[in-house]
Amino acid sequence: MKPAETYIRPVHYYETDRMGIVHHSNYIRWMEEARLDYMLRKGVDYVQIEAQRVLMPVTGVSCEYRRAPRFGDRIEIATRLVFFNGVRAVYSYEIYLAGEDTLLANGRSEHCFIDEESRRPLDLKKRMPDISGIMQQITEADSEPVRRRK
Amino acid sequence: MKPAETYIRPVHYYETDRMGIVHHSNYIRWMEEARLDYMLRKGVDYVQIEAQRVLMPVTGVSCEYRRAPRFGDRIEIATRLVFFNGVRAVYSYEIYLAGEDTLLANGRSEHCFIDEESRRPLDLKKRMPDISGIMQQITEADSEPVRRRK
Amino acid sequence: MKPAETYIRPVHYYETDRMGIVHHSNYIRWMEEARLDYMLRKGVDYVQIEAQRVLMPVTGVSCEYRRAPRFGDRIEIATRLVFFNGVRAVYSYEIYLAGEDTLLANGRSEHCFIDEESRRPLDLKKRMPDISGIMQQITEADSEPVRRRK
Amino acid sequence: MKPAETYIRPVHYYETDRMGIVHHSNYIRWMEEARLDYMLRKGVDYVQIEAQRVLMPVTGVSCEYRRAPRFGDRIEIATRLVFFNGVRAVYSYEIYLAGEDTLLANGRSEHCFIDEESRRPLDLKKRMPDISGIMQQITEADSEPVRRRK
Repeated sequence: MKPAETYIRPVHYYETDRMGIVHHSNYIRWMEEARLDYMLRKGVDYVQIEAQRVLMPVTGVSCEYRRAPRFGDRIEIATRLVFFNGVRAVYSYEIYLAGEDTLLANGRSEHCFIDEESRRPLDLKKRMPDISGIMQQITEADSEPVRRRK
Repeated sequence: MKPAETYIRPVHYYETDRMGIVHHSNYIRWMEEARLDYMLRKGVDYVQIEAQRVLMPVTGVSCEYRRAPRFGDRIEIATRLVFFNGVRAVYSYEIYLAGEDTLLANGRSEHCFIDEESRRPLDLKKRMPDISGIMQQITEADSEPVRRRK
Repeated sequence: MKPAETYIRPVHYYETDRMGIVHHSNYIRWMEEARLDYMLRKGVDYVQIEAQRVLMPVTGVSCEYRRAPRFGDRIEIATRLVFFNGVRAVYSYEIYLAGEDTLLANGRSEHCFIDEESRRPLDLKKRMPDISGIMQQITEADSEPVRRRK
Repeated sequence: MKPAETYIRPVHYYETDRMGIVHHSNYIRWMEEARLDYMLRKGVDYVQIEAQRVLMPVTGVSCEYRRAPRFGDRIEIATRLVFFNGVRAVYSYEIYLAGEDTLLANGRSEHCFIDEESRRPLDLKKRMPDISGIMQQITEADSEPVRRRK
């Protein structure tokens, strides 16, 4: 089930390759767009996080491709924060054609939190308790649909 | 153990992001560069494959990030074709700083083969037996080190 | 004076480089996004043009950079079709921070029309008279503000 | 006449678009690759410049496209530093198919120098006299062939 709020945007011409479809590397970029938009809608502004000298690098990423969108299509991404414990966060993504139920791709990204200066890992629960609190709430909400399916 | 032949190239300035490191999406593009270079060195020219109206889309991709290269670094990628059965191919990638043994990242990509016109899956063993033969030989050679480790 | 209809979108994190600002090559991509959006709003769907086996490659591009946007900013692009004679089209672009009057950059792109198969130049007035008619009307309208300034 | 030292690299698959040719925005990125490689060969390491908190943003860029390379081609770029006065630098680029004399495109980029912290313009002759001296020498050498043609 698609969540109420998704991220929608057109496929850009420069995102296609000579196969005539979107180059697979762009889905990884779309996942970033969708993640940052999702966090902003939940009240977590990544600009504010970086202003506190906290970075959130990607430690792992994966994507499964089912059907390829083309130039002229609009895509719709449903993002979920499926795990967060202060030192690690995991997001999942479902990519659809906008307004349709056919899944184009689904992906996943893992992140840690580091100090911009020392480049060492940090616990967001200690460094930014407010942001951390919001992320914990999101995680609980996002896990709900999964539990219900049992 | 790094294979004898690897793919080496510099990090480009435009591949960095405001974190000061290479943006994670570019590793997916590097894996493509390394894969096509690797195949070419083995005698499989992807330009020739597409000239036969065969496409080899990516059906899945993953990458684990350990240490991030920066502008000024050169990267070295060891590619292996770890699975091939005519309808599906799986490559693995190890990304190093050039000339060093420290692993920056390791990735994996899965592919199928489709007809350019019909966009339907095909068996490369039937469509391009010569190319298919080379890919089977590579797979056996690339699997060897793994077997030896047992 | 900004036209009534502009193209607005956020700066993406992956568009920044290690200088902390948007990499200059992305403005060229934004100009394409803005151009195709502008044409669509005027009733010219580039998907339809390519469906008729007509391509519109870029023969020249230029951009002057004044102030650099950052991640977190939204940009607003005013596009104008300043010249069109059936075989050649020239667009101009003004890039602003969304909702503000400070110009970030201004650019220009030149295009011709070619047949997809033969790759030879063609006259859009003959090949697609309806689309060509719309483009001629747009050009006249877009030139107006410039004339008025005299 | 091509200079003795040029920058050569393959066209990457992900640089093509659905027209089947390289997307025009990538030439702007190639010009950056060629410029930084050219400077490095002349003894100017851009990593060293940035280590001194000096940035060299692009203030203008242009490119004329004549013939489009495809996946499988190798490109060769001849870079020249055609103007340098300490506060402003202008480079020109000629892009060829590797080993051939047919010009694919020619471009130009303009740059200033700014302090990373204050983001204000600076005079490289005062801030980095050694680097500045090399760049002045290059400019004189690069202008020579043009004078000889008279």
